[in-house]
Amino acid sequence: MTSAVQPILWTREQLRLLDQRELPQHVRWLDCRGAADVAAAIHDMAVRGAPAIGIAAAYGLVLALRADADGFDRAFAALAASRPTAVNLRWALERMRGVWLATHDIEALEAEAVRIHEEDLAQNLQIGAFGAALLPSGARVITHCNTGALATGGHGTALGVIRSAWAQNRLAMVYNTETRPWLQGARLTAWELQQEGIPARLIADGAAAHLMSREKIDWVIVGADRIAANGDTANKIGTYALAVAARRHGVKVMVAAPSGTFDLRCPSGREIPIEERPSTELTAFRGQAVAPDGFDAFNPVFDVTPAELIDAIVCERGVVGTPTSEGVARLLG
Amino acid sequence: MTSAVQPILWTREQLRLLDQRELPQHVRWLDCRGAADVAAAIHDMAVRGAPAIGIAAAYGLVLALRADADGFDRAFAALAASRPTAVNLRWALERMRGVWLATHDIEALEAEAVRIHEEDLAQNLQIGAFGAALLPSGARVITHCNTGALATGGHGTALGVIRSAWAQNRLAMVYNTETRPWLQGARLTAWELQQEGIPARLIADGAAAHLMSREKIDWVIVGADRIAANGDTANKIGTYALAVAARRHGVKVMVAAPSGTFDLRCPSGREIPIEERPSTELTAFRGQAVAPDGFDAFNPVFDVTPAELIDAIVCERGVVGTPTSEGVARLLG
Repeated sequence: MTSAVQPILWTREQLRLLDQRELPQHVRWLDCRGAADVAAAIHDMAVRGAPAIGIAAAYGLVLALRADADGFDRAFAALAASRPTAVNLRWALERMRGVWLATHDIEALEAEAVRIHEEDLAQNLQIGAFGAALLPSGARVITHCNTGALATGGHGTALGVIRSAWAQNRLAMVYNTETRPWLQGARLTAWELQQEGIPARLIADGAAAHLMSREKIDWVIVGADRIAANGDTANKIGTYALAVAARRHGVKVMVAAPSGTFDLRCPSGREIPIEERPSTELTAFRGQAVAPDGFDAFNPVFDVTPAELIDAIVCERGVVGTPTSEGVARLLG
Repeated sequence: MTSAVQPILWTREQLRLLDQRELPQHVRWLDCRGAADVAAAIHDMAVRGAPAIGIAAAYGLVLALRADADGFDRAFAALAASRPTAVNLRWALERMRGVWLATHDIEALEAEAVRIHEEDLAQNLQIGAFGAALLPSGARVITHCNTGALATGGHGTALGVIRSAWAQNRLAMVYNTETRPWLQGARLTAWELQQEGIPARLIADGAAAHLMSREKIDWVIVGADRIAANGDTANKIGTYALAVAARRHGVKVMVAAPSGTFDLRCPSGREIPIEERPSTELTAFRGQAVAPDGFDAFNPVFDVTPAELIDAIVCERGVVGTPTSEGVARLLG
């Protein structure tokens, strides 16, 4: 195992989840003994990150069936409702249902949950290997948001590339953006980097362009929430600004994500819907008001980086350089 | 008076300062009855913004001399020490000393303080007039940090241009960045905009590039901390990233600042030193830890926007379009 951070531990009797709400100030584990515990952990965001949620839910079904061999549908419904819009959650639960309907065997169900977990980890390790191979020796990189072991089955996607590069002794410095408004970079990525002992410095999102103007940066490495057929990539708000600055400074941009992130129903980024979240995420901080009462905010969760600003999309199947619809089709075909 | 916000009120018996630490949640006034009160207000950042500090200190000398006609040097030293690196503070105090040495007349001293205040306000109003004239009708603009009445003798520089444009009915929408790490945009600019009733929305610093890709924005309007002889402009961190994104989207960039902001000893931005501040400004929020204990941050206060990305520098003497050393010299000469 290459990652010092393993936020999902399966002991067969229980599922132990690293409580991400408490990080980085406290490392606390939640012991989940049934599907209700797991559903609560997902709902309350003790576990976050699309792959991590799917894995936790799969183990949750195993715990449910151990307690009550007739409880599949009830547990399925409770887990599916815990984060209704999470695509990976639904996907993992449906895959588990397929095995249960075919076998009605708890051992087979458990094996499938472990397989979902291990497949995700294996994909990340493969992404890490492909991505790290693109970096020069002594690489200096910028990353955004949290795309690490905490968000996945272990290792991570963009942060997995950074972990792999560090393990190969190719990495000199990581700058991680704080990632407003949720501060996943300041809280979670910083914690993972510190756990690994990787040299790193936190920067304000708005400082990345200045940094590129003052210091040689080799790559911006980010994850993806959805990738259109032509390579346009939706990712955490702020990614596009990084890519625009990177182009000006000759810094390359890498998108690292499992192949399941491609959505071929979207020909380009224009068709990707951009979720907007409440103003209060910007106007308050941990319940304390920052902006004046009633002040409005524009709070998009994602932005779209056009393929022309991306130098490589890396998934477990390989790499597309300067992505195009043809290149993406070839990779996935 | 065009501004609804007057943070420095001189009643002749006392100086009333709007306490900026409490904004926007509380509108509280500090009543300063002597130089010590004013020095404390400057030191504790109840009043901030280079012009505002200089004006407050000038009034502080008047209060000191009223209490003790031999107290000039002591009051001067106390006020000068309240923010040792503030250039405007020193400049205002020296100007007051010149009048005191020439006249030893408290009435003349008071008149000079009022003159410093009124000159700053007049400069801002002139900047506002020149800047607003550059905006199209129905303008949609982005601004950064706080450059408003709170930072000056009233009205403001970049926010003064926005106020003037609003008064002229030319303005459709302002997006103001929250401005990490100090959140002057979320706290202070938002409050000023709300006081004026100007339509505005808060955005994360990293969302501005996305906004430009989705909506027609006419101008990015920012202030300046120092402008080199060739027009390169040092301003709050994040300004450069805005200018880079603006160029990509055909959005124009305006720098609005009094002519005293030019530093002709710096031929270009390369000679402008960039102050770095402690990591804790990024790793904690209002005393609460955000990042893991001991995590390092790169926290530059300013960045430099090269003149080639600036479409207009506006000061009280006029406008330089697409600034060059010749254009700047002509404006100031």
